[in-house]
Amino acid sequence: MSDSSVPITLLPKPPVELLDVVGIGSPLVDVVARTDEALLERLELPKGSMTLVDLHQAEAIYASMPASIEISGGSAANTAVGVAALGGRAGFIGKVASDAMGDVFTHDITAAGVDFEAAVANGRSHGTGRCLVLVTTDAQRTMATHLGVANTFAPGDVDGELLARTKITYLEGYLFDLDPAKEAMREAIATTHGADGAVALSLSDSFCVERHRKDFLALLTDQLDLLFANEDEAKALFNVTSLAPALDALEETGVLAVVTRGPAGCTVVTPAGRLDVAAAPTEAVVDTNGAGDLFAAGFLFGMTNGLDPEQSAQLGSLCAAEVISHLGARPQADLRELARDAGLLD
Amino acid sequence: MSDSSVPITLLPKPPVELLDVVGIGSPLVDVVARTDEALLERLELPKGSMTLVDLHQAEAIYASMPASIEISGGSAANTAVGVAALGGRAGFIGKVASDAMGDVFTHDITAAGVDFEAAVANGRSHGTGRCLVLVTTDAQRTMATHLGVANTFAPGDVDGELLARTKITYLEGYLFDLDPAKEAMREAIATTHGADGAVALSLSDSFCVERHRKDFLALLTDQLDLLFANEDEAKALFNVTSLAPALDALEETGVLAVVTRGPAGCTVVTPAGRLDVAAAPTEAVVDTNGAGDLFAAGFLFGMTNGLDPEQSAQLGSLCAAEVISHLGARPQADLRELARDAGLLD
Repeated sequence: MSDSSVPITLLPKPPVELLDVVGIGSPLVDVVARTDEALLERLELPKGSMTLVDLHQAEAIYASMPASIEISGGSAANTAVGVAALGGRAGFIGKVASDAMGDVFTHDITAAGVDFEAAVANGRSHGTGRCLVLVTTDAQRTMATHLGVANTFAPGDVDGELLARTKITYLEGYLFDLDPAKEAMREAIATTHGADGAVALSLSDSFCVERHRKDFLALLTDQLDLLFANEDEAKALFNVTSLAPALDALEETGVLAVVTRGPAGCTVVTPAGRLDVAAAPTEAVVDTNGAGDLFAAGFLFGMTNGLDPEQSAQLGSLCAAEVISHLGARPQADLRELARDAGLLD
Repeated sequence: MSDSSVPITLLPKPPVELLDVVGIGSPLVDVVARTDEALLERLELPKGSMTLVDLHQAEAIYASMPASIEISGGSAANTAVGVAALGGRAGFIGKVASDAMGDVFTHDITAAGVDFEAAVANGRSHGTGRCLVLVTTDAQRTMATHLGVANTFAPGDVDGELLARTKITYLEGYLFDLDPAKEAMREAIATTHGADGAVALSLSDSFCVERHRKDFLALLTDQLDLLFANEDEAKALFNVTSLAPALDALEETGVLAVVTRGPAGCTVVTPAGRLDVAAAPTEAVVDTNGAGDLFAAGFLFGMTNGLDPEQSAQLGSLCAAEVISHLGARPQADLRELARDAGLLD
């Protein structure tokens, strides 16, 4: 029997610090140049799409591009940065090489306040990924991505620590182009759900959806809590040519889905019905790169910080409007302040 | 005696293709971030200046900088790009490493239409130079430069081919911080003059002038045809505290000189007297980085393409106004078109 006059004290277990959003995707440095349509045709890059290219192709495209600027990018990484810029707690998981572009990516995402779980490959065969972004005068962006070391992203590159404490894990659809990454995504989904987190997926690109329709539909049926798609991606997912049947099909899944429609705003599809939200006004659209990523940032921040779906979609629209007003897919203005001015956040 | 019925023909010697301007300087990739004054103070960087830093210091500064963008820069390189953007024929001579940033610099200057005579160092000890550019809300830029391999620029790195056919060789004063580069500059001046070209010098930075006053004054006396300085640099050159005596001293040298005075325009000092030219209007000043470089581009293009000093200064002001309206020290708009719209070029 213990002496009850000697108190036995346990140090209180520190509370787990929750994250709002953890993104998983390919870390990329964007190489951005303004160009004309003729170059896209010569390079045979479908306007508005993302094409995966090998190092040789990337070098050939770069050689024919005008003078460029380098800005950190990567779809899910841009979203994580947007969440942090709104004052949220964000993490990002991805694979970089130990090289100059890897240093740039790591510096920028860390400086933006995102907790970066970097899988670092030291091998000499792959560099850090880069995305050649050709911005035409209509502000459309066409991308050729050389994934570099992100191409080898695999289950061992996710240690689960961030996923155990995130409210939402956000996956970029692009990762489903890679078999080992696909496996890593399945494990990430299981880890997230095991810790009572939700899982969101961005369909990324209609060509990507064409390649992985079956995988994405299976995920939607029993793994996802939230889906982001633009109009083309939603149509591609259900293999239909107009939006209405795609929205009907989404509604049947019972998953919360947001379909962005560029200047026409977005449609939030919930089990309780649909909701149209207008796009936020912009003075001039310079570069649509990052529009979807920053829409997702605003929506995810809203949903994890007490806003309802309508307010979250309004916040997403506001973030998207900021990022398309300048070159590059990461915010330049203070998103928190913009949201305050718009009356969406305190 | 030759048979005169067999004509002896010599192939005509092809005409030498003249260049308007060849710049010599340190190739740099600018790492540009918006920041507040507090960071400058913490880093002990004098606002508006350029400080040379070693790799260790550069890494420490970078670690404390916000998310950045990378844009090719380098003072004389920016000037060469500006000349090309006006439709001129421009060359650039400088030393890069065989690394990612060297590839970026080479791509961008070549894509801009500049003939780049690259001295490439393959050693592993130095990378390509980079310039950390901190832009404060007042649009001032403060720079910390790690020269990297440009630090080893030496006479053997200039082969003279470009210099033999340029109308003007343009030297950045920064190079006089390096003894072997200083020797390379002397040889470049001799080569240029030997081929009946003119030599221009930019004083670059008032701290640089403090360090090399004697060298610069000696050059001014018997080597230079054209001098570019801003107000602070002109005062530092003659060790005076106001502009008037500096302008008097410049006039006595008999060298064509242009003193830029920011929003107050510039003063062209010629042996035949002085001329004040107003600054070109700008909507919003975002980043003054490159203002002097692009002024020089416009002035040099004008002087090598039939404009008089006043028109050349107006063209310089127009180019400077464009570059300070956005982040980065290279032009984004079509300078030739701007000049046409302003009635300065056909």
